[in-house]
Amino acid sequence: MIRVGVVGATGYTAYEAIRLILGHPEATVTAVTSRQDSGKPIADVHPSLHGRLDLPLSQADPTQLAADCDVAFCCLPHAASAETVRDLQAVGLKAVDLSADFRLRSASLYEQWYATPHPWPEQLGRVAYGLPELFMDEIRGASLVANPGCYPTSAILPLAPLLKARVIGPQVIIDSKSGVSGAGRTPKLANLYCEANESIAAYAVGKHRHQPEIVDVLDRYTEETPEVLFTPHLTPMDRGILSTIYVEGQGVDAAAVKGHWREAYAEAPFVQIVDNPPATKHVSGTNYVHMAAFDAGHRVVLLCVIDNVIKGASGAAVQNMNCMFGLDQTLGLKA
Amino acid sequence: MIRVGVVGATGYTAYEAIRLILGHPEATVTAVTSRQDSGKPIADVHPSLHGRLDLPLSQADPTQLAADCDVAFCCLPHAASAETVRDLQAVGLKAVDLSADFRLRSASLYEQWYATPHPWPEQLGRVAYGLPELFMDEIRGASLVANPGCYPTSAILPLAPLLKARVIGPQVIIDSKSGVSGAGRTPKLANLYCEANESIAAYAVGKHRHQPEIVDVLDRYTEETPEVLFTPHLTPMDRGILSTIYVEGQGVDAAAVKGHWREAYAEAPFVQIVDNPPATKHVSGTNYVHMAAFDAGHRVVLLCVIDNVIKGASGAAVQNMNCMFGLDQTLGLKA
Amino acid sequence: MIRVGVVGATGYTAYEAIRLILGHPEATVTAVTSRQDSGKPIADVHPSLHGRLDLPLSQADPTQLAADCDVAFCCLPHAASAETVRDLQAVGLKAVDLSADFRLRSASLYEQWYATPHPWPEQLGRVAYGLPELFMDEIRGASLVANPGCYPTSAILPLAPLLKARVIGPQVIIDSKSGVSGAGRTPKLANLYCEANESIAAYAVGKHRHQPEIVDVLDRYTEETPEVLFTPHLTPMDRGILSTIYVEGQGVDAAAVKGHWREAYAEAPFVQIVDNPPATKHVSGTNYVHMAAFDAGHRVVLLCVIDNVIKGASGAAVQNMNCMFGLDQTLGLKA
Amino acid sequence: MIRVGVVGATGYTAYEAIRLILGHPEATVTAVTSRQDSGKPIADVHPSLHGRLDLPLSQADPTQLAADCDVAFCCLPHAASAETVRDLQAVGLKAVDLSADFRLRSASLYEQWYATPHPWPEQLGRVAYGLPELFMDEIRGASLVANPGCYPTSAILPLAPLLKARVIGPQVIIDSKSGVSGAGRTPKLANLYCEANESIAAYAVGKHRHQPEIVDVLDRYTEETPEVLFTPHLTPMDRGILSTIYVEGQGVDAAAVKGHWREAYAEAPFVQIVDNPPATKHVSGTNYVHMAAFDAGHRVVLLCVIDNVIKGASGAAVQNMNCMFGLDQTLGLKA
Repeated sequence: MIRVGVVGATGYTAYEAIRLILGHPEATVTAVTSRQDSGKPIADVHPSLHGRLDLPLSQADPTQLAADCDVAFCCLPHAASAETVRDLQAVGLKAVDLSADFRLRSASLYEQWYATPHPWPEQLGRVAYGLPELFMDEIRGASLVANPGCYPTSAILPLAPLLKARVIGPQVIIDSKSGVSGAGRTPKLANLYCEANESIAAYAVGKHRHQPEIVDVLDRYTEETPEVLFTPHLTPMDRGILSTIYVEGQGVDAAAVKGHWREAYAEAPFVQIVDNPPATKHVSGTNYVHMAAFDAGHRVVLLCVIDNVIKGASGAAVQNMNCMFGLDQTLGLKA
Repeated sequence: MIRVGVVGATGYTAYEAIRLILGHPEATVTAVTSRQDSGKPIADVHPSLHGRLDLPLSQADPTQLAADCDVAFCCLPHAASAETVRDLQAVGLKAVDLSADFRLRSASLYEQWYATPHPWPEQLGRVAYGLPELFMDEIRGASLVANPGCYPTSAILPLAPLLKARVIGPQVIIDSKSGVSGAGRTPKLANLYCEANESIAAYAVGKHRHQPEIVDVLDRYTEETPEVLFTPHLTPMDRGILSTIYVEGQGVDAAAVKGHWREAYAEAPFVQIVDNPPATKHVSGTNYVHMAAFDAGHRVVLLCVIDNVIKGASGAAVQNMNCMFGLDQTLGLKA
Repeated sequence: MIRVGVVGATGYTAYEAIRLILGHPEATVTAVTSRQDSGKPIADVHPSLHGRLDLPLSQADPTQLAADCDVAFCCLPHAASAETVRDLQAVGLKAVDLSADFRLRSASLYEQWYATPHPWPEQLGRVAYGLPELFMDEIRGASLVANPGCYPTSAILPLAPLLKARVIGPQVIIDSKSGVSGAGRTPKLANLYCEANESIAAYAVGKHRHQPEIVDVLDRYTEETPEVLFTPHLTPMDRGILSTIYVEGQGVDAAAVKGHWREAYAEAPFVQIVDNPPATKHVSGTNYVHMAAFDAGHRVVLLCVIDNVIKGASGAAVQNMNCMFGLDQTLGLKA
Repeated sequence: MIRVGVVGATGYTAYEAIRLILGHPEATVTAVTSRQDSGKPIADVHPSLHGRLDLPLSQADPTQLAADCDVAFCCLPHAASAETVRDLQAVGLKAVDLSADFRLRSASLYEQWYATPHPWPEQLGRVAYGLPELFMDEIRGASLVANPGCYPTSAILPLAPLLKARVIGPQVIIDSKSGVSGAGRTPKLANLYCEANESIAAYAVGKHRHQPEIVDVLDRYTEETPEVLFTPHLTPMDRGILSTIYVEGQGVDAAAVKGHWREAYAEAPFVQIVDNPPATKHVSGTNYVHMAAFDAGHRVVLLCVIDNVIKGASGAAVQNMNCMFGLDQTLGLKA
């Protein structure tokens, strides 16, 4: 059994990671930490865990974690996460980092977008980006994996094979709709039920932090840096992301797009290419990705749905863990 | 008092029209019709009207309607609506048609998109398109007004001034998100609570009937026919439309866009130009339109929100009625 | 025109009061105050008001308010509200208090439930309780009205006539379901979208502050103090309250209950007695109350729905204002 | 591996049963049937199953099912289900019946409430009632189990130990709130998104079919037939049931209630006794039951939450299957 520690265990992604590990046949949760709720039973902050996980929240002590765990899932805010990951790696503990800290490959880009110097800059560029559908070789056997952002997962998976095959141009428009869980569990006016319910709105137009992440990953597939226009929207639902992506290319159509996808994802069990427009509900609670393509004049419209808390966060973390430990990547992710 | 008849009174837009007229200082509902529920009190199909409107549903008899009403709001399905409007106009009754029947100016385009010959083709092209913000002169004094589609309202208002001023190119991408009420009140699987709730999905990608309507109206402002890529999405909320629109133009930026809007809508009391991304909730229950613009690379992102049942349907009908009868266009639409 | 000042204008009930006054034919908003957002335009905190109300938020200065207004709607937290009301009354300004401060008739009961001494205890017991359906004589011409709690409105209206007529016993069980707006606009974990959405839960079981308020009002109708078991539930919707009330009485049945209601509310335009179980949606956005009764063995089940923000707060405030100023009580409340 | 056939596989409970079996370590889905969608791939009616279950829907042929399966989950409408179960049992196939057909022990009671004669009346009274928490001995080794109704599960589990211990009186009031999935997947006006969303209402007051089921089961624990007043409410959420139950008894209080529960459910892994009011979200997606008790005057308020589609339907079916086949009852139900 792989012993998993969840560091920063009070938020939504941490809960989902715990829940997934509870159903995993070859992993078990052995530690849960929280700075502010240390000492409380985990079920006090996640009442769903009553009778399912009987662990107290503890302080995140690297030595103790290294003794109790084989891998840590870091669910801390950015910057704090990189510091902790550095300390955990120093005592030899493998880690999947669910923050944004190791996703970009450049410390200056990080500082520009996250408004703080990176705590461990020399590590950037050496960390596997945790999309096994594209980076399996780097993830397999890695000691640290950067879990991708939720929006980037929904954008990179449909775009990467098309950019790699040079069938679409570098200009892409990504119009993404996310459920509210993406905003985290900290009380803020915008995330109150009566503000978010029965309403949809764009936010951070042209300046969301996931835009450079998308570019940084897609850039690996193109000669010309892709020009990504990314607009995220807060949608009145708990979970789910739909990215509607507008691309164009010389003579490419929806059928050709699907052909490239089928080839690229022949070995990717979670990627499903579907004919009808996929709904976020079709993948809700799962690690699956549904993608479809439609012709619209000289452009092609790509649709991609994921569960932002699972394939966009904790499910990906489990999938990465499976790969890091040489297990079947679908273990614990089929229900 | 203007006496209003609501023809086809069992759906959501009909209810909303009745509700608005109940609060209108110079109009009153004098007839409500329904083929299948004729004879029942209106409160049987709209329980909200208990004690507020004590009228039985009747069959839509043109002569009787002409005797009882000064204007009819036609809320019938397409094709049926055109037939009824023709009969009402024949007996001299003014009408606002809330169906799609008189929005397009070409009978062949209508037949292509609605899969049925138009019942009154010679009338097409002579009917005022009911956006008072753009077509006040035609609407004032008209005997028949074609109430615009909900999506077109949210797309045409931000785009028309920019196309007219030749500051954006003819290629526009409209990514629209609508509440479920836009799908009507007829029971269908896709509109069940457990299908639509907690889910967002695109539909009719590249082939929605509102696409030719948008083009047909915008075409009046451009030399080159605009090339509109329109993707509607079903969003888990009762009401509201957000259109996120991607445009580009030589040297135009968000500030310039707002300048054109301010000029175009200086006399339009319901159009508000705002600085932050507008949420559909900000206009929910109102006839207002909130529009914002943001720079994103060489493109500009336009955001426009309306209440699809009000400014996108029944509020626009009341506004059009006000204009047809020479009243202040905001009457009954301020609360 | 009655000039209305809204004191503490940043919350949901304040917004709704402003919205209702904007559609009121004989009232206008002349002042809006906020301690923390003073100086900002009101549309900054309520974006729905863009272009509809062009007033800055100011500090609540009694003298200034008395100069600018004919009546103040106090939307402050309890205790703070009583102090402000006292100061406003001292300078001769009429007030509708939307807090809980003047609802109970006893200072010790207030202190017991609100955990603070009452700031103006000598006034308790002299203030009209703002349910015009029951206390019209006290409200007409009053200079201060205590706006009822939302839950109490939904419980007292169905119960009072039955207790007064001695047809039900003093033991009543009130199982109430409220939308989340009842919890206010202050960010708290329990009111986050992802906590409240897709979930229903009871809270404050057997110890909610509205329980003594219900008893205090119903007590006026009975010899024996009623024994009220009140259980509120947080329901995943913006607005609305449904109270399901279980009563029993010698030989009383649903038909008799409706008879008593019809008699008691013959002159109450907002109370509607309906045959089918009423849904909160039937009264959403309105000042109406729908009540129904059903036999169930030897008990009768009473159902009562209101919009908690309108009949349960701001609509009642407008209705009370209408009565205080001798206007038709339905003015501005019909749409 | 237990081979499971799902008969009537197009609804919500069938989907959930399939989903749970997909994650079950010792069971597999080998047949899915549907009269009207026979021939289609299962993913056509449940898009979530793309790439997860590659089976076509077939007609429900008993002989074929007996060849392909070890157990059938019958998800048919009542009456149709009993006929099919009879045929399946005739060819020796074990079954869990998710309809209401084998829950009552009397054919006349069945006919009274379901308005049709029972197709297999002689079987009534011989079928195990599928609540392993109470009837493990009957379920273990049974060839046919009647899966309980969703509301009855949420009512019987908290009430049975208290009635058995004679600590509460026979009069109980059950005020239940259910998500919309309980109404099934057939398009009906009341279940449309725009009807059910943002609204709560009681229905079938005093005459819901689950009332006699609750009584029939609880009657086994009491001398006097319990007098159950049951009011179900349609709540704007996909899934979940909260039952708020009002009981009274000589000297019993919340602490005593919990004591009885702890004793009764010491061996019941899915029953959790909690201190705070449980929310339906705490058990959403799980087979768990959270129960709490609170004092309120001389009464005790019991709160019980389940996921209506899991513990109230398909999770219970899997749990029953586990027991029928001698497996650990929690198998496949931990995530």
